[in-house]
Amino acid sequence: MNVIAFLTDWGLSSYYVSVCKSVIKRINKNADIIDITHSAGHFNIKKYAALIFRACRDFEEGTVFLCVVDPTVGSPRKPIALKTSKYNYYFVGPDNGLFTLVIQEFGVEESVELADKRFFYKTDYSSTFHGRDIFAPVTAYISKGINIDHFGPKTEKLVTFEVQKPIIEGNKVICDYLYSDDFGNIETNLSSNYLEHLDLGKKVTVEINGAKNTARVVNNYAEVKKGELLLHIDSSGFYEISANQSNAAHKFNLTDDFEGKVKIYLEL
Amino acid sequence: MNVIAFLTDWGLSSYYVSVCKSVIKRINKNADIIDITHSAGHFNIKKYAALIFRACRDFEEGTVFLCVVDPTVGSPRKPIALKTSKYNYYFVGPDNGLFTLVIQEFGVEESVELADKRFFYKTDYSSTFHGRDIFAPVTAYISKGINIDHFGPKTEKLVTFEVQKPIIEGNKVICDYLYSDDFGNIETNLSSNYLEHLDLGKKVTVEINGAKNTARVVNNYAEVKKGELLLHIDSSGFYEISANQSNAAHKFNLTDDFEGKVKIYLEL
Amino acid sequence: MNVIAFLTDWGLSSYYVSVCKSVIKRINKNADIIDITHSAGHFNIKKYAALIFRACRDFEEGTVFLCVVDPTVGSPRKPIALKTSKYNYYFVGPDNGLFTLVIQEFGVEESVELADKRFFYKTDYSSTFHGRDIFAPVTAYISKGINIDHFGPKTEKLVTFEVQKPIIEGNKVICDYLYSDDFGNIETNLSSNYLEHLDLGKKVTVEINGAKNTARVVNNYAEVKKGELLLHIDSSGFYEISANQSNAAHKFNLTDDFEGKVKIYLEL
Repeated sequence: MNVIAFLTDWGLSSYYVSVCKSVIKRINKNADIIDITHSAGHFNIKKYAALIFRACRDFEEGTVFLCVVDPTVGSPRKPIALKTSKYNYYFVGPDNGLFTLVIQEFGVEESVELADKRFFYKTDYSSTFHGRDIFAPVTAYISKGINIDHFGPKTEKLVTFEVQKPIIEGNKVICDYLYSDDFGNIETNLSSNYLEHLDLGKKVTVEINGAKNTARVVNNYAEVKKGELLLHIDSSGFYEISANQSNAAHKFNLTDDFEGKVKIYLEL
Repeated sequence: MNVIAFLTDWGLSSYYVSVCKSVIKRINKNADIIDITHSAGHFNIKKYAALIFRACRDFEEGTVFLCVVDPTVGSPRKPIALKTSKYNYYFVGPDNGLFTLVIQEFGVEESVELADKRFFYKTDYSSTFHGRDIFAPVTAYISKGINIDHFGPKTEKLVTFEVQKPIIEGNKVICDYLYSDDFGNIETNLSSNYLEHLDLGKKVTVEINGAKNTARVVNNYAEVKKGELLLHIDSSGFYEISANQSNAAHKFNLTDDFEGKVKIYLEL
Repeated sequence: MNVIAFLTDWGLSSYYVSVCKSVIKRINKNADIIDITHSAGHFNIKKYAALIFRACRDFEEGTVFLCVVDPTVGSPRKPIALKTSKYNYYFVGPDNGLFTLVIQEFGVEESVELADKRFFYKTDYSSTFHGRDIFAPVTAYISKGINIDHFGPKTEKLVTFEVQKPIIEGNKVICDYLYSDDFGNIETNLSSNYLEHLDLGKKVTVEINGAKNTARVVNNYAEVKKGELLLHIDSSGFYEISANQSNAAHKFNLTDDFEGKVKIYLEL
């Protein structure tokens, strides 16, 4: 019995998440569902793509990920299911770029368009709630062991957004701002694999959103004074900018919808 | 084994929801609990009544709904359990109008006042936390198959609030504003059954809270430009006013506690 | 099979809670996890200590509490597991005072430092996410029946913060403000056991944060008019200051990070 991991941008104040769980349970009453998040803001496909990628690696092989961030539901974007080459993960959701990072990192063993209405919740399915009507039931069938090639025709090419790799120019590293977490920790796409480890204890200057602040390269939050900025490799293997027991995002005046670059100036 | 669906207005920042789940598990260790919501604001019985009605229809026959929005807990309002004629749903909670819509739509096969303290969590139960002390344990016993007539005397008449049906006057439709969801989608009590389908592609003027805006009648969010308003039948069968990838409630300056009418002027 | 109760200060907008659940399920696939809360603010050990104490007493003997409020993760503070003398509860988390109240009230039968890496998620565990790498897997092993003395050496003395008992001076009671819940109910450390019951119906003056307001001593919210303040013994056995269908914390201009005293002046 595979675990189902569930992520949406629907928020928790309405009933949408619950009825998807109900639909899953109607098909697979022993389904074991773990919520990743439903409340990291609306519509931001790149942010949720990063959350999916970071979360999924701590799930077991064979986990079925039901991921619905779907601002263009009802448009011609395809509903899909895919199986990754590495880890044998299953991802079910819209073909709108949400799975860009897992596709790039794990490879696609197989992917299909969800077309066979026998696997839908209702054959007269709604045009605005594919989560309940298409994605949840297909997820439940996968968790029961149905092979994804039953759900529809193979897809040729999946939608992905362009991922910009970090750039090193002299003493400057430029990478993407991805999102800030609940603590105000600033998440980047600068992987520990990509950059050689920075010297612990050194100071760097971090520039985001026009604001520059000094941060110290450390292993732990507690190595700098309360409120001070630090740069470290977080538990997902990416560099993170944090403030010890404080909110780093506030120090750069970042709002939820900020998009842009993180520039790190190394002390030489 | 019936699923338990759980809805309250308690929020998620305290421990109240968790101890109810613990009480349920102490009685029925295999209970399968799905949270509908606990964070759609406080005390608003009409809003939660609408959420319950919209959510419940995607749950299986026999589901036990534990619903506690109970601003007058400890007053003479009765604690009740009821079974609906249609769907054989069970609802457990306060007799304060919260079940108005399910009573009207599904009918009541049987309803009882929760009076037999042998089914309570504590015989010296608290006066302010009937969720933990009365409703949760009774829910657990129902999920184990105990018939509701064991819990206390039959009730004569249940409390319901007056539901105003939508009105059509010439080219104007007047219906109730119910609530806005996490996306800012505006939910009304205008059922697709009630109004004949509007012509797709037509424009209408929507007036709420003194503000008038134009919306287009469509099937999907993606049929209007980003940020523009639309009127469509949502996945629960009611007309909804939305803004594509934007927040419709903001366009009408609606606050969480807004109550009032939605007026839709049809183009002739 | 013991229930696992899970509390953190991580919020729900990121994936941290989910990967801990995944790690638990990888070790104990039948684990039954109940979330206490993850969103009562950040870093406030005293507040979370109060939430843990109030929540835990409604859980069954043998429950395993995974509690991670850990502002100094990665510092020399110890990761621990303890078993209480009363109730046979298990608590897993950082040794930073978070378990002060349960230690004082229930006593410690046994406590160990989590040192044996065979029970960790990864032997090269992260320095900033002990929740996933140390506490979650140890919790899972306890829920499978592994005795805590397997995890590492016994601890000599656990960290606790100083708890100030309420003081009665003439007609004045001085106690601690602990936190406000989602409704704005104000929680104190004034136990019903500590103070003899106040006369029902009497008025008292409550002073918090420099603001004084009159409240009536009652059993139920509904005994005062809507919006009026009341003082009552809540469902956890402590005195609580509430406003009927309104927000008491707002009436004292309390912010989330307020710390201070509650003074109650009794009418003589």
